[in-house]
Amino acid sequence: MYKLRCITCEKIYEPSRDLYTCPHCGDRMGTLEVIYDYDNISIKKSEFYPEGDISQFSKILPINQYVVQLKVGGTPLYKFKNILGIKELQVKYDGTNPTASYKDRATAIAISKAYEFNYDTIYCASTGNAASSLAGLTAPTKLNTFIFVPASAPIAKIAQLYVYGANVIQIDGTYDEAFDISMVVGKKLNWYSRNSAINPYLLEGKKTGALEVIVQNNFEPPDVVLVGVGDGTVISSLFKGFYDFYKLGLINKIPKIIGIQAQNADAIVRTFEKGKPYTPVDITSSTIADSISVGKPRDVIKACKYVEKSGGTFLRVSDEEILKAISELANLTGVFGEPAGAASYAGLKKAIKNNLIAKDEKACIFVTGNGLKDIKSVEKLIKPIKIKPNLEEVLSFINEVKS
Amino acid sequence: MYKLRCITCEKIYEPSRDLYTCPHCGDRMGTLEVIYDYDNISIKKSEFYPEGDISQFSKILPINQYVVQLKVGGTPLYKFKNILGIKELQVKYDGTNPTASYKDRATAIAISKAYEFNYDTIYCASTGNAASSLAGLTAPTKLNTFIFVPASAPIAKIAQLYVYGANVIQIDGTYDEAFDISMVVGKKLNWYSRNSAINPYLLEGKKTGALEVIVQNNFEPPDVVLVGVGDGTVISSLFKGFYDFYKLGLINKIPKIIGIQAQNADAIVRTFEKGKPYTPVDITSSTIADSISVGKPRDVIKACKYVEKSGGTFLRVSDEEILKAISELANLTGVFGEPAGAASYAGLKKAIKNNLIAKDEKACIFVTGNGLKDIKSVEKLIKPIKIKPNLEEVLSFINEVKS
Repeated sequence: MYKLRCITCEKIYEPSRDLYTCPHCGDRMGTLEVIYDYDNISIKKSEFYPEGDISQFSKILPINQYVVQLKVGGTPLYKFKNILGIKELQVKYDGTNPTASYKDRATAIAISKAYEFNYDTIYCASTGNAASSLAGLTAPTKLNTFIFVPASAPIAKIAQLYVYGANVIQIDGTYDEAFDISMVVGKKLNWYSRNSAINPYLLEGKKTGALEVIVQNNFEPPDVVLVGVGDGTVISSLFKGFYDFYKLGLINKIPKIIGIQAQNADAIVRTFEKGKPYTPVDITSSTIADSISVGKPRDVIKACKYVEKSGGTFLRVSDEEILKAISELANLTGVFGEPAGAASYAGLKKAIKNNLIAKDEKACIFVTGNGLKDIKSVEKLIKPIKIKPNLEEVLSFINEVKS
Repeated sequence: MYKLRCITCEKIYEPSRDLYTCPHCGDRMGTLEVIYDYDNISIKKSEFYPEGDISQFSKILPINQYVVQLKVGGTPLYKFKNILGIKELQVKYDGTNPTASYKDRATAIAISKAYEFNYDTIYCASTGNAASSLAGLTAPTKLNTFIFVPASAPIAKIAQLYVYGANVIQIDGTYDEAFDISMVVGKKLNWYSRNSAINPYLLEGKKTGALEVIVQNNFEPPDVVLVGVGDGTVISSLFKGFYDFYKLGLINKIPKIIGIQAQNADAIVRTFEKGKPYTPVDITSSTIADSISVGKPRDVIKACKYVEKSGGTFLRVSDEEILKAISELANLTGVFGEPAGAASYAGLKKAIKNNLIAKDEKACIFVTGNGLKDIKSVEKLIKPIKIKPNLEEVLSFINEVKS
């Protein structure tokens, strides 16, 4: 029902148990796309409903059987009319997934593939959302799970992995060292890899966010979508989701896609700005938005090609803008995103200011992680004012607040 | 469509703007029940669906109009067959609500009532889930929100309130002082009170969790439900939800309800054990499960009466059992609950051990809050083992783990 195609040399492969990336172009330039035989897929709008989990899209997912029990996807899309000077703001909020981030969409597919390929163990290297997602979603399955993390990762993030009962390998070294050793060990021990980008099926899981936005808009796509960008997989997946529905005749246009990177983690913006043929520009990244703090993005080629095809672009936002975006978004919509999630809102404001979004357009931002994942970064919002518990002092404080 | 009845003297009142509790019996003994004219409500099973928000139950909610935009309710119910020696374990997980706890169900009703009664300001005293729920759900509304907290509350919990843009009044005193001054100020300034238990409508919001469990079981109720108990409102609400559906002829039995309290926060267990007529036994509470750490429970009378009517009981669990329950539940099901949420699982194990649940019965536990709300309490699960990033050391560690 589907094949794999190299994003660079466009060679087509039959899917097989051990094929992750194009053997000719390598892990970085040779990430694979899943391509379907659209003419032979019979699909109707009425098959889908707004609150369904991602298995409702099985006809365009590269799996034999969906085996995940926890509810992944079917996350809310909130709509706010005539706001910020545009026709409509839509907020796709993935903080309500089982482990509270967008990553669950990819993990659900990884687990289904691990079953299909008959692996008994699955692993990833990550300190963040991918790690907790893999640990959480594999907990009620028969799979063994190994997570490689740098021992220096925030204690709260490591704690969560132990809660879910994953086998945690705390590497006495950097994240890159943890990643590299995970690949060597995974290959040697014949484990399934949930390392993003090199596994072509993960993007297919992530695209379900885009599919849901379409369903939740009654198949009338918003004009622009915006999302924070780290490795480049999520943004690529949005294009892929829209593209699939477009090729199947379910929508008549693909929204412009705008990728948002943190100012000091802007490897993909740099690559995109240098123009074609896209070649990766690697940097040393640094931002409070840890989930998109990537210096050497793995899916940079897809991200640039797809965003260009959509008629979109990339923007940078500062850490200050991201922090401000967290509370502004929460104030306006009640949606509390982690820094990487709120980056899309910071980008929206910049895009409106730069006239990239017209007054009569609808824009949809993806908030990819729950703010509860990173309380530390918002603690500076607290005002250190203590009031004595007597009526006069409290009333005087309230009057101050109100004026 | 509904009236209010005192839980103690059973006097019936017409609802009115300023009526919170029975004027004769007072705030503690005189909490009010919302009673419906069941004979004149036309309701069908087919009106409901598993993923719908709580507004689908409007016919048995005490509101004119549901005004909350964020998706409250429709949270997942997970089922695990033949586990722990019983027929089925069901997990009702409310960590996916907008502010990640069960409290959003009550807040949604409080906001709708504030609109109906034409209030411009709403308030509560709380350091925990009620506070973040009120701050979050009112953020996208026109309501002004004031939250009274003791300034000594955990910084992470206070930070969240500022993120949502609530007016935070940090009281230089205890929680009880914050509560008392909030009541005085709220009355003086004519604000709507979202202080649990004294507001009879909040329980009606909370009962939607029970209604959903019934819908998600195709109107065949589980045999037993278990939930952590603090003030006594949530457990009372479960009975009320089942009772409403029973009186409407949608189910043919009410499940046994078992309330779980922390060993050193067992005021309601003590009251229940002393027997009828129930009179509150107040204590000084202390438990890691902060959301159920209540020494002076406000809804104790309803909780005791309702649990007795259901044929259920109350149990105590230790903090150690609660901590163990967090990881055991997460390991078994992938559901990561906060301590008060996992208390229901600790209670389930005790109930099975004490033969309160038979082998052929189905039990449903309510996990009322997301584990991300309290990462601190699970940090002690971390094993302090660092591995050098070389193949030999990693393989040797993996062999150790596997054996």
